[in-house]
Amino acid sequence: MTEYPTSIGRSDADSITLLGHDLAGELMGQVGFGELAFWLVAQRRPSAGELRVFEAVLVALADHGLTPSAIAARLTLTGAPESVQGALAAGLLGGGSRFLGTTEDCGRMLATALATGPVPDEDAAYDELATRVVTEARAARRVLPGLGHPVHKVTDPRTPVLIALAHESGVYGPHLRLFEAIGRVHPAIIGRTLPLNGAGVCGAALADLGLPVEMLRGFALLARTAGLLGHIAEEQRRPIGPAVYEQVDRATDYRAD
Amino acid sequence: MTEYPTSIGRSDADSITLLGHDLAGELMGQVGFGELAFWLVAQRRPSAGELRVFEAVLVALADHGLTPSAIAARLTLTGAPESVQGALAAGLLGGGSRFLGTTEDCGRMLATALATGPVPDEDAAYDELATRVVTEARAARRVLPGLGHPVHKVTDPRTPVLIALAHESGVYGPHLRLFEAIGRVHPAIIGRTLPLNGAGVCGAALADLGLPVEMLRGFALLARTAGLLGHIAEEQRRPIGPAVYEQVDRATDYRAD
Amino acid sequence: MTEYPTSIGRSDADSITLLGHDLAGELMGQVGFGELAFWLVAQRRPSAGELRVFEAVLVALADHGLTPSAIAARLTLTGAPESVQGALAAGLLGGGSRFLGTTEDCGRMLATALATGPVPDEDAAYDELATRVVTEARAARRVLPGLGHPVHKVTDPRTPVLIALAHESGVYGPHLRLFEAIGRVHPAIIGRTLPLNGAGVCGAALADLGLPVEMLRGFALLARTAGLLGHIAEEQRRPIGPAVYEQVDRATDYRAD
Amino acid sequence: MTEYPTSIGRSDADSITLLGHDLAGELMGQVGFGELAFWLVAQRRPSAGELRVFEAVLVALADHGLTPSAIAARLTLTGAPESVQGALAAGLLGGGSRFLGTTEDCGRMLATALATGPVPDEDAAYDELATRVVTEARAARRVLPGLGHPVHKVTDPRTPVLIALAHESGVYGPHLRLFEAIGRVHPAIIGRTLPLNGAGVCGAALADLGLPVEMLRGFALLARTAGLLGHIAEEQRRPIGPAVYEQVDRATDYRAD
Repeated sequence: MTEYPTSIGRSDADSITLLGHDLAGELMGQVGFGELAFWLVAQRRPSAGELRVFEAVLVALADHGLTPSAIAARLTLTGAPESVQGALAAGLLGGGSRFLGTTEDCGRMLATALATGPVPDEDAAYDELATRVVTEARAARRVLPGLGHPVHKVTDPRTPVLIALAHESGVYGPHLRLFEAIGRVHPAIIGRTLPLNGAGVCGAALADLGLPVEMLRGFALLARTAGLLGHIAEEQRRPIGPAVYEQVDRATDYRAD
Repeated sequence: MTEYPTSIGRSDADSITLLGHDLAGELMGQVGFGELAFWLVAQRRPSAGELRVFEAVLVALADHGLTPSAIAARLTLTGAPESVQGALAAGLLGGGSRFLGTTEDCGRMLATALATGPVPDEDAAYDELATRVVTEARAARRVLPGLGHPVHKVTDPRTPVLIALAHESGVYGPHLRLFEAIGRVHPAIIGRTLPLNGAGVCGAALADLGLPVEMLRGFALLARTAGLLGHIAEEQRRPIGPAVYEQVDRATDYRAD
Repeated sequence: MTEYPTSIGRSDADSITLLGHDLAGELMGQVGFGELAFWLVAQRRPSAGELRVFEAVLVALADHGLTPSAIAARLTLTGAPESVQGALAAGLLGGGSRFLGTTEDCGRMLATALATGPVPDEDAAYDELATRVVTEARAARRVLPGLGHPVHKVTDPRTPVLIALAHESGVYGPHLRLFEAIGRVHPAIIGRTLPLNGAGVCGAALADLGLPVEMLRGFALLARTAGLLGHIAEEQRRPIGPAVYEQVDRATDYRAD
Repeated sequence: MTEYPTSIGRSDADSITLLGHDLAGELMGQVGFGELAFWLVAQRRPSAGELRVFEAVLVALADHGLTPSAIAARLTLTGAPESVQGALAAGLLGGGSRFLGTTEDCGRMLATALATGPVPDEDAAYDELATRVVTEARAARRVLPGLGHPVHKVTDPRTPVLIALAHESGVYGPHLRLFEAIGRVHPAIIGRTLPLNGAGVCGAALADLGLPVEMLRGFALLARTAGLLGHIAEEQRRPIGPAVYEQVDRATDYRAD
C-alpha cells in the first residue's frame, strides 16, 4: 500500500505534533515564528546567531513600497474584496525571476562557484575565484545576480548591515565572503563599479546558513507575505486600487497594432 | 494630480524607509520577523506581551500535516517544479471559508457580539451575553465558528495553552473571555459539549490584540505560508505528489453521470 | 477501497476518452472549443441555438480593456516573465464579487425569485414578480445585481443584442424575461432609470440555458481567460507594466498613517 | 504624460470596442469563442482552415482526467468553496514546465531549428535537419520535447488525427513537417522508437499557424481552463476532495527525516 512519508506534522484526537514536538506543550509560546519557519524548511532548529541573521534577511526583504507585486495584490482586492487569500496569492505570483529571483539566483551562483573546488581559506584565493566567476559571466554575456540596482546606484544600505550582522553573529561564511570578493574584483574586469545589492546579500547569507538553494526564493516569498499583508490591510482602510485603475484607464491610448 | 498615499515604505538612492524607520539602520537585526508582520498590519509596534501571544498564534496555525492545502501545493509543484511561488500560491488559495476562515469568523462573531452593548465586566455578564449568542445561532441554525473540531472531539490542546499565555502576558481581554463563556454555557443550550477549537481561540486572541477583524484570515495565511514552505521543501527532497496522482488515477471510477 | 468517480475523462495506453467519446476519433476537428466547454460543465451537448447564445456570452465577457484584472496580470508578468500561468492566475483572481461576480449574482437572483412559485406565463405576471423582487431589495437596502453600470449609464449595448440573439435562437426563457421585467418596473419603484447591464444579461441568458448557477462565475472566468491571454501577449510584445509601476511609484505620497 | 497603448479594447458611455470592432454590433453572435481567443492573441482573424486546427488543438488539450492539476483545483475548492476563481487559479498554476510546458517547448524547439537556415523544401532535407536536432540533443543529454509519453507508449492517438486535420485544412507547414521527420529519424539515432506525443504535435501545429512561441503555453492554459471548469462543476455536484484528503491522511507515515 502506498504511504506518504512526512516529517512535518500530524495530529490525533488528543495531540498535535509538529517537527517531532508537541505543538501545544513544547512550541507555542516557546518558539518564535521566524524560528519555526527556519526549522520547518531546514528540519533543524537554528542557533541564536543563525536566527538573528535569518530574521534580519526576512526584515530586509519584507517590503519595497508600491512595487508591481504590491499593486497587483491591491488591484486584485479591488475586484475580489472578499478574498484576502486571492489578493495575497496574486501578489506572490509576481515574485518570479525578475524581482524575488535575485536572492535565489545569487545564492545558487555562489554555491555553484564554491562547489568547483575546495573552499578557499584566504582573501587572495576568494579574489581569484571571484575573478573567474566575473570573467566567465562577462564572456558569456550573463548578468551576475546580486550586482547592481536600479535605485541604489552607489550602495545598497542593506548590504553592509547584513554583512556586519553575520560577523557579529558568528555565521559569516564562504558565500558572503565570495560575494564580497566579487564586489572587490568586478570593477577592474567590467570597467565600472556596481553595488552589491540587498537581494543578493540576502541570498549569500541564507546560503551561509546552510539552507537549500532551491528554497531561497521561498524565504523571499515568506518575507514578502508580511509586506503584502501590510499593503492589503492598508488597501482595506484606504484603497488606492480604484484610483490606479482610473488613472491607467484615462491614459489608455487605444490603437490598432 | 492623483497621488497614492501609503504609510508602509519607500526608497530612494541612499535609503530605504519602512514604517517611518530606516530599514538598514533601525530595523534589520533589531526587529523580529513576527514583530514586523504585526507592525505592518496594525501600524504600531506590539508590546512584548502582545508579541508573545501573536507569535504563539502564528505557531499554532502554521501547519496541520497533509491537509488539502498542503497536498494542493505539492501537486502544483509536481506540474511546475520551477515555480515555488506558484505552488505556494496554490496552497494559500485553499485558505478560504472552510479551513482558515474559522479564525476570522470567530474573531468577527465575538467582536460583533461585544459591539451590541457595553463591554461586560464580570463572568456572569459574559455568560449572559454568551447565552444570547449561542441561543440566537441555534435559532437561526447557524454554526458557531470556533466550536467543535473533526479530530479533537473533547479538547483541542491549543486552546488552554493560548488562554494561559494570554493571561501570563497581560493581554487576556473581552474576546477570549466571551469565547470561554461560550464554552461554559453552550452544553445546556445545545445539549452536547463541544470543544473550543484552536482556530477559534486564535481568532479571539488576535481580536484581543486589537488587530482588525477583516485581516484575521491574513494572519492565518501568514502562519500557513511557513507550513507550506516546509511542505514544498520536503516535496523537493522527497516527493509524494506523483504517488498521490498515481493513487488517485488508479482508483478513478470512470462512468457516465 | 476508496474510489473516485468522474464522468469527465480517462486515458489508457491506446485511447483517450472524454465525456464518453473517443477524443481523437470523435471530438477533435468535430466539436468546437466553446461547445466542449459547455458540454464539460453541463454534461450534455448544447443544441445549435444554445451554442450560439453561449458563445455570444463568452464573447461579450471576454474583455473590457485595461481593467484591474488585466493590469494585475501584466504587473505579475513584469516580475515573473517566465510564468505565463502565474500572470493568468493573478488576473483571474480579481474575478471576484465586485467584477465578474455580477453574472453569477444576477443569474442566482433571478433563479431564486422564479423558484418561489410556478413559472409565470405572461408579461403581467412577470411584472408582478419583478415588482416584488425590486421592492424587497429596496426595503433590505440590497443592490440588485445586473442593474446599473459605472460607464454605460443609459444603455449597455450588449443587452439588447443578447436578448435578440436568444429570441432568434429559440432559447429566450424565464430568466431573461424576468430580467426584462425588472428593467420595466424598477423606475417607478426606485425613482430613477438604470440600464440592464451586460454582465447581468449574460447571467440571465446562461441560466436560461439550464447551466448551474454556482458555475456562472466559472463561465465569466473562461471568457476572461481569452481576454487576459490577449493582454499577456500584448505585454510580451509591448510592455506597459514597468510604466504603470513607475507612474505609481512617482505619485506615491509616503506619510505616517 | 505617460500613455498606455493597447490594441485590445476600450469602452465609453455608448459603445464597447474590441479589436477595432463594435463588440455588440459586429462580434457577439458572429464570432465564435475559439476564434476570438485566436484573434486576441494573434491580432488577426484566423481563416476557416486555421480555426479548425486551432480548435482541434484546444479540444485535444482540454482535459486528461484526474491529473495533479485537476486534483489541486478540487482540493482548493474543498477549503474555499466560495471561490471558484481560486480553485481555477490553483489548477492552472500546475500548468508549468512538466505538464503543459511540452506544447510550448516543442514549438520553440522546432522554430529554433528552422531558424538556423532556409526552410527545407523536401523530405530529405527535413530528415537531415531532424537528424541534426536529435543528434545534438542526445549529445547534450537533453530530452527532446514532444517525444515519448508515460501512458501512450506506442502511439498517441491525437497525433495522426491532428496531422491529418492540418493537411485537410491547408495549414500543414514546416513545424509539423520537421516534427514528423523527427519521428522518422530518431529510432536509428537513439536506439528505440518513441511516439510523437499529443502535447508536442499541438505545439507544432500552433507554430505552423504563426502564433508566437512564447504564447503557446497560454493556449494550453486556455484549453485546460475548460477542463478544470468541468472538474470544478463535478466537484460541486459530487465532491471527491474530502475523500482524497482522508485517503492521504490515513496513509501518512509520520517520521523524523
